[in-house]
Amino acid sequence: MVRRNLFLISSSKVHGHEYLQHSREALTEFFRKHNVTKVLFIPYALFNYDKYTKKVGDVLTSWGFEVEGIHRKDDPVEAVRKADAIYVGGGNSFLLLKLLHERKLIEPIRERIFSGEAVYVGSSAGTNVATVSIKTTNDMPIVYPPTFDALALVPFNINPHYLDPLPGSTHHGETRQQRIEEFHHLNAIPVLGLREGTYLHVEDDKMTLLGDFNARLFMKSKTPVEVPPNSDMSFLLRE
Amino acid sequence: MVRRNLFLISSSKVHGHEYLQHSREALTEFFRKHNVTKVLFIPYALFNYDKYTKKVGDVLTSWGFEVEGIHRKDDPVEAVRKADAIYVGGGNSFLLLKLLHERKLIEPIRERIFSGEAVYVGSSAGTNVATVSIKTTNDMPIVYPPTFDALALVPFNINPHYLDPLPGSTHHGETRQQRIEEFHHLNAIPVLGLREGTYLHVEDDKMTLLGDFNARLFMKSKTPVEVPPNSDMSFLLRE
Repeated sequence: MVRRNLFLISSSKVHGHEYLQHSREALTEFFRKHNVTKVLFIPYALFNYDKYTKKVGDVLTSWGFEVEGIHRKDDPVEAVRKADAIYVGGGNSFLLLKLLHERKLIEPIRERIFSGEAVYVGSSAGTNVATVSIKTTNDMPIVYPPTFDALALVPFNINPHYLDPLPGSTHHGETRQQRIEEFHHLNAIPVLGLREGTYLHVEDDKMTLLGDFNARLFMKSKTPVEVPPNSDMSFLLRE
Repeated sequence: MVRRNLFLISSSKVHGHEYLQHSREALTEFFRKHNVTKVLFIPYALFNYDKYTKKVGDVLTSWGFEVEGIHRKDDPVEAVRKADAIYVGGGNSFLLLKLLHERKLIEPIRERIFSGEAVYVGSSAGTNVATVSIKTTNDMPIVYPPTFDALALVPFNINPHYLDPLPGSTHHGETRQQRIEEFHHLNAIPVLGLREGTYLHVEDDKMTLLGDFNARLFMKSKTPVEVPPNSDMSFLLRE
């Protein structure tokens, strides 16, 4: 058994909901179950750390949880080692991954999560970096990270904000599915397309899809499969 | 004066046109002006080199030009050094850039273009790699290139397949403009958003926007500007 408690959100903004509110019930329950009262927030995927931490902090505080930004800590590695909950916010995956590597946070986060001492919440780019690599991000490569390898808290990749082809579109850029198929020309691991409004709950070796929509699962050389909410997806955790 | 003759296409597929046909007249004139009869095609951005070379070759042959795939040459570097025209096709920019570096083609292509001995045609990813870097590509980072630095045949970046926000969209992924603004948080060079159906013609220090639509010019800390077709954009070539 691999110990880990993860809550991986496709996007913090969902059509028809205020910021983060679509996952309020499930995320609150997740924190309470693991006796979380204080959350360490990692805002590295955006540029204004104070503003970003306040935005997420205001929501989580209203739900009864305390939030601290890692950028306010003298020793970020030590902050990770003491955290009960690590929340990695969305933004640019390349920027986020670069800073996690440069600040030597990859291994400390992995250790803290795999020991079961802290839970992990990721949203969008924060969900990308929880997987094997950021090779299935939608973001623009605005900075060059030392590697595309990420936290590998799960043994597959996720495409957050997964988007179906727009009916009647006259645009000729690749569809999301075409891009993921390109990934599979060169990489073998599964890719889970997480539509906005969906999230994954991982408890050790058990994984469940939650939220309002199907996910779309891409396996190399196979036809993609639609997976409905509340499906047990633990098979993706077996390496 | 910097010598160079470039034809940089946003996309080979344009709504309402057969493959490459939207640029037929201008590209034919460009080749004829520079006495090009044979084109060296670089298909590295896709996976099936023969198929891709045939697809582009069938079109160019019907226009009166001969096409050879670089993958059929024993010595790709030597092929570049002898080419009169180098055509880099679209696909995945990360894959393309990785192979150009690995096969040590970056400097030979630059030398051949800046000496004025060969002309360069790029489409989509082939246009991305003609600029300073691939940091403004739309592609998925399916492989890790040794750097994001590209051919730098021009001193700015391009975003091909530039797309305006879709009216009424409920999707919360970043818009193209937001992504380019993220780029400008960390990078100072201009970015030209080239809509599908537009292309740039560069002749030494003179650059003209051609095609059916405006381009959108993003300069760091400035409001983006719409540039109409047939505009002289030579100011972007001054470093």
